[in-house]
Amino acid sequence: MTDKIHFDRIAIIGAGLIGSSVARAIGRAGAAGTLVVSDRDPAVLQEAREIGFADDFTPDAGEAARDADLVIIAVPVGAMAAVGEAIAPSLKEGAIVSDVGSVKEAVFKALDPVLPKHTHLIPGHPVAGTEQSGPKAGFASLFDGRWCIITPPDGVDKGALGKLTKLWEAMGSTVEIMTAPHHDLVLAITSHVPHLIAYNIVGTASDLEEVTRSEVIKYSAGGFRDFTRIAASDPTMWRDVFLNNKDAVLEMLGRFSEDLTALQRAIRWGDGDALHDLFSRTRDIRRRIIDAGQDEEAADFGRHHEE
Amino acid sequence: MTDKIHFDRIAIIGAGLIGSSVARAIGRAGAAGTLVVSDRDPAVLQEAREIGFADDFTPDAGEAARDADLVIIAVPVGAMAAVGEAIAPSLKEGAIVSDVGSVKEAVFKALDPVLPKHTHLIPGHPVAGTEQSGPKAGFASLFDGRWCIITPPDGVDKGALGKLTKLWEAMGSTVEIMTAPHHDLVLAITSHVPHLIAYNIVGTASDLEEVTRSEVIKYSAGGFRDFTRIAASDPTMWRDVFLNNKDAVLEMLGRFSEDLTALQRAIRWGDGDALHDLFSRTRDIRRRIIDAGQDEEAADFGRHHEE
Repeated sequence: MTDKIHFDRIAIIGAGLIGSSVARAIGRAGAAGTLVVSDRDPAVLQEAREIGFADDFTPDAGEAARDADLVIIAVPVGAMAAVGEAIAPSLKEGAIVSDVGSVKEAVFKALDPVLPKHTHLIPGHPVAGTEQSGPKAGFASLFDGRWCIITPPDGVDKGALGKLTKLWEAMGSTVEIMTAPHHDLVLAITSHVPHLIAYNIVGTASDLEEVTRSEVIKYSAGGFRDFTRIAASDPTMWRDVFLNNKDAVLEMLGRFSEDLTALQRAIRWGDGDALHDLFSRTRDIRRRIIDAGQDEEAADFGRHHEE
Repeated sequence: MTDKIHFDRIAIIGAGLIGSSVARAIGRAGAAGTLVVSDRDPAVLQEAREIGFADDFTPDAGEAARDADLVIIAVPVGAMAAVGEAIAPSLKEGAIVSDVGSVKEAVFKALDPVLPKHTHLIPGHPVAGTEQSGPKAGFASLFDGRWCIITPPDGVDKGALGKLTKLWEAMGSTVEIMTAPHHDLVLAITSHVPHLIAYNIVGTASDLEEVTRSEVIKYSAGGFRDFTRIAASDPTMWRDVFLNNKDAVLEMLGRFSEDLTALQRAIRWGDGDALHDLFSRTRDIRRRIIDAGQDEEAADFGRHHEE
C-alpha cells in the first residue's frame, strides 16, 4: 500500500516475550529503517542477538532511544519509571514513547513526569501473550487478530496517535482507543482477576495434605490443567500488574467472591436449578468468544488427539 | 497379545461425549463381540445410529443390558439410580456393572441398592473429556494416556475387577485403584472446584455494568478465554456433580477462599514478595504436568499461531 507506515528508527526497551514479538512483528511489516533492541539483562540480550530480530542490540536503553522516532517500552510495569529516566536525556524532539504494559493509568503516572515535554507519551497495550517468557518465546504473529488498546492522554498529538495506530495495524492488530481508567477496569476482569484466580487455585492444590501433589498432577486433565497454563506466566510481570491496578482488581475480586459465596450456598442447599441456570448462561459466552475469533473452535483448545 | 480382553456383549447406557467415546474406544480395541448402545433421547440415539459406533442401538436400557457381560452407565450422576432400576431386571448372573461418573461414592450408593446381588458393581471414572457434548463430540482416542480411576467396593470379585481394568487399559488408559471417598476428594480439587470457579468468573464477567459483555469478549485473550472453555461444559452433568459431591467440594472451596482472602490482603497491603513467591511456586506445577504427559508442551495449549 502507498501509505505504508514507516519510522526511520524504532527502539524497543525489553527483549522478553512481548518486546521480542513486537520486534519480530515490526520486522515482518518492514516498518522500521533501523530497529534497535535493548535489554539490561546480559543473558537475555545475548539470546536476542543470537536470534537476530533487530538491526542493533545494546544493554543501554538511553543509547537505544537516541534519535529514535518511536520508543516502545516492554518491561514490567514496576520498571517503567526507571526506563523513562534512562531514556529521557537522549529522546529527540517529537519522539513518540509508548509501552505494552497490562496496566495503563499507573504507566502514564510513572512515565509522564520523567519524560521531556517535547516528546509524545501514548501508552498502549496489545491484548495478547502466552504463558512463556523470554526472547525465544516470542513470534511475529502474536498480535495477529488481537486487539491493541491505546490510551492517549488528553490533548494527545493526533499525528503521533495516528502513526502509532497504523504501526499496530501493520503488526496485525485492531486498535481500540479508550481512557486509561476504563482499560484498567476492563482488563481487571478479562485478564488480571483470571490470572489471580488461576495462581490461587494452583497454590491451594499444591498445599493440600489429604491429596498428594502427584495426584493433583496425575488427574489434572479433569480441568485443573487449564488453570496451570496462566499460572505459569511471568511472576515479576504479574506481581507488578497487581500492585499497580490494585483498586480495579480488588473491586472485581469482590464481585467474584460475592458470586462464589452465592454459588457455595446453592451447593449447600442443593439448589440444582440455580446451578443449572448459571452453567447454561456461561456456555453462550464461550460461543461468542469463538464467533469473535478470540479463541479456537476446536474442542479442548485444539489439544492434539489422534482420531 | 494373547490375553486380549474380550466380552461377548457390552452395553453402554448413554451416548453422549463419554459414552460415545467409550463405544468408539471399545470398537478400536475390538474388545466386544456385540456392542449395544442405548440412549433415552431419540435425537441423540438417532445421531449415534448415523455415526454407527456400535452393532445395535436401542432406546430401552433394559433391552440393551439383557445378557450383557458388561454394562457401562454413561449418564449424569443424578440419573444413575433410574438407569440402575431400568436395567436390574434384565441383568444376567455375574454381569459386571460399571460407570464413568465424576463422583464415585454417590454413584455406588445410588446403584448398589437397586442392582441384583448376583451382579458385580464396580464404579469407575476416566479422567478425560472436552467441553463439548453429544455423540458427535466423542472420539476413540479420548482416553489415550489418561488415568481411569476404579473404586471397587469391599469384597469386590477379583476376576471382575481384573476384566474391567484390562478393558480400560485396552482403551488406552492407565488404571488407578482408590476408595470412592478419596476419589471424590481428589477430583474435588483437580476437577470440580476448577469447574465451579470457571463457571463463577464467567458469570461475574457477564453481569457487570461498568464493563460491557462485548468488551469481555473482545479482550478475552488476556486470560479470561481459558476459563470459558470449561465453563462451556454440560450443565446437567455438572449440576449433578456438585449436588452429589457437596462435602468435598465445599471443603476444597473453603481452602480456595481462605487462600484468595490472603492473596487479596497481599494486594491491598502491596506485599509484592508474597505475590512473587506464590507466582513462582505455581510455575513448577505446570512444568510437572507437562512432564507427566498430562498437557501440551506447546505455548498457549498449542493454539494455532502462524510463525
